[in-house]
Amino acid sequence: MRPDDARHMHRALELGRRGIGNTWPNPAVGCVIVNGDVVVGEGWTQPSGRPHAETEALEQAGEAARGGTAYVTLEPCSHHGLTPPCTNALIAAGIVRVVAPFSDIDPRVSGQGFDHLRAAGVEVVTGVCADDAADDHAGFFCRIETGRPSLTLKLATSLDGRIATASGDSQWITGAETRAFVHRLRATHDAVMVGAGTVRADDPLLTVRGFDVPRQPVRIVVSRKLDFPVDGNLARTLDIAPLWLCHADDAPDDLREAWTTRGAKLIRVPLQGRQVEIPALMQALGAQGLTRVFCEGGGELAASLLSADVVDQLDLHMGGVVIGAEGRPALGALGLDRLSEAPRFALKSVRQSGDDVVQSWMRQRRQSDA
Amino acid sequence: MRPDDARHMHRALELGRRGIGNTWPNPAVGCVIVNGDVVVGEGWTQPSGRPHAETEALEQAGEAARGGTAYVTLEPCSHHGLTPPCTNALIAAGIVRVVAPFSDIDPRVSGQGFDHLRAAGVEVVTGVCADDAADDHAGFFCRIETGRPSLTLKLATSLDGRIATASGDSQWITGAETRAFVHRLRATHDAVMVGAGTVRADDPLLTVRGFDVPRQPVRIVVSRKLDFPVDGNLARTLDIAPLWLCHADDAPDDLREAWTTRGAKLIRVPLQGRQVEIPALMQALGAQGLTRVFCEGGGELAASLLSADVVDQLDLHMGGVVIGAEGRPALGALGLDRLSEAPRFALKSVRQSGDDVVQSWMRQRRQSDA
Repeated sequence: MRPDDARHMHRALELGRRGIGNTWPNPAVGCVIVNGDVVVGEGWTQPSGRPHAETEALEQAGEAARGGTAYVTLEPCSHHGLTPPCTNALIAAGIVRVVAPFSDIDPRVSGQGFDHLRAAGVEVVTGVCADDAADDHAGFFCRIETGRPSLTLKLATSLDGRIATASGDSQWITGAETRAFVHRLRATHDAVMVGAGTVRADDPLLTVRGFDVPRQPVRIVVSRKLDFPVDGNLARTLDIAPLWLCHADDAPDDLREAWTTRGAKLIRVPLQGRQVEIPALMQALGAQGLTRVFCEGGGELAASLLSADVVDQLDLHMGGVVIGAEGRPALGALGLDRLSEAPRFALKSVRQSGDDVVQSWMRQRRQSDA
Repeated sequence: MRPDDARHMHRALELGRRGIGNTWPNPAVGCVIVNGDVVVGEGWTQPSGRPHAETEALEQAGEAARGGTAYVTLEPCSHHGLTPPCTNALIAAGIVRVVAPFSDIDPRVSGQGFDHLRAAGVEVVTGVCADDAADDHAGFFCRIETGRPSLTLKLATSLDGRIATASGDSQWITGAETRAFVHRLRATHDAVMVGAGTVRADDPLLTVRGFDVPRQPVRIVVSRKLDFPVDGNLARTLDIAPLWLCHADDAPDDLREAWTTRGAKLIRVPLQGRQVEIPALMQALGAQGLTRVFCEGGGELAASLLSADVVDQLDLHMGGVVIGAEGRPALGALGLDRLSEAPRFALKSVRQSGDDVVQSWMRQRRQSDA
């Protein structure tokens, strides 16, 4: 490792983050090419996943890549997919050194990219900024390891954990700055997911607004019987962003047809009790290629996701207001008796956002798993 | 103002804080005496309020006070109370300059202390560290201005605003570091207050444990009918800390007598509907001399205090756990319809405490008050 390796890798990670939320099913990779002390090329995975970051950076570098070092936030691919492998391109461009955080865990790539480079006489250095890179690629890795996308659950609550008054008034618990931040969060996820109750109550758009995005996140509604209006804001905006409806077998045929005609994608999920089966739902979303899903409630869906232990990150946006016990709870019933059975989270970050407090908590293994 | 004034006043405030929670009904004042560049005396109000900070600092300084500056965190008293006025002592010791944050608002002192000093040829400077001092003296000022003590409400909740599972399991939502911090909070208040439900559920001691305090805070139970056991931990520890029971007229005579025999103080408060009247309760506590009260729940008492708009500070201690909708709510019903009627708070501070998040929120005036 050289003194500047971490600095250049940080830059590569920064670039890679520009693709987060719009490269799925591919990872969002960043690449910096340095020759001597000069950065000669920068690139990141383009929307939908092509071209790759390496291709972009090599094109920018041109002949200046020869004899240089490539900083890549994931092991370069060596397999022939839709495009020729990046290892070929790096070797052909005369790159003599490749720095990466770790091996890709995709079995089609894992170690083989580095082997290919080494066989061509390229020096390979790994272990640079591995923690940061693991964080950025968490959704991509989660899908490869478990078949499902990573899941962030956002709850916007009062200081006493309520999301609305008894009459349904929820405007506004959090302030404008925090609500604008939610659009940033949507933009850095592949999909935004809600339950049917939220659609009935709020008639939301679920799009990213306030700034341009290369690709709107997919909008997902989880609704066993598709029991929400077919002429709401979601239906009216199918030209702006995709809409996927996850339903069970007993959803009425006419509703299925109505939504298909409007252009929504229907995903059938098995039932578990009275609700769609959460593990099957998450596998279905993974099978569609999603790597990062952002759930915005409501309380029943949130509780089901927590009970199924698939919430990887819990984002709590709290406004400085108290509502009291008649207010609508942020979470439905979890069926817990003892506190030791309760889902636990470890604090990742906490900060002030306007007049609110924004916290991120990461899933911990259950005590019984230990 | 001189360059070092703020630094010396910060030190005086630090000293004054040593008395917070144990000087009531008197303010917790700090005093630093400086001669030339040398700190020659330091003092703070002693437990129960005597001797005053100035007396302590002057005694330490002795002859070195002559020609010096006294930094006092509140206007020195000029009236004859239980002890001769501090202004006399300062003048007699040869102090030539007094620095204070602002005038005392106690009508027996306000401005008269400074007038007395000026008449004796002492230079008086005010406006130094006024915000910090106002914060430290908030309880003392609240009692003078409104007749009631300041009130901090602490809620220790899960991420979804619950304080226990449906079966009552609450051990532990927050970790050891945060629970130890609660004892620090108790120690910096004149009294710790809970509702009868909390006594029945937890049989708490409500004492400060883990470190020495010059004076244990008063323990207050608010219970219309005194319907909690007379042989619990509170009764067993009457030799350690005082116990005040705030009840209504319809509390049974035998229970009143049992508690009086045990050494508890009984405070009768008028009824409002089915509960003791909160404004009257708070006035009664002020009349007893309390300046800072720390309420630790439960949910019903907390809701009543919030509804009566007497919660000056809300401390939220959150552990990284979710409990779900069957869990016991941190707050009882507030009877709100619209969010615009809800009590609002402004963030004072937020920090990590072990694995938990500790937030302090300050009361905001209702929108309808504006």
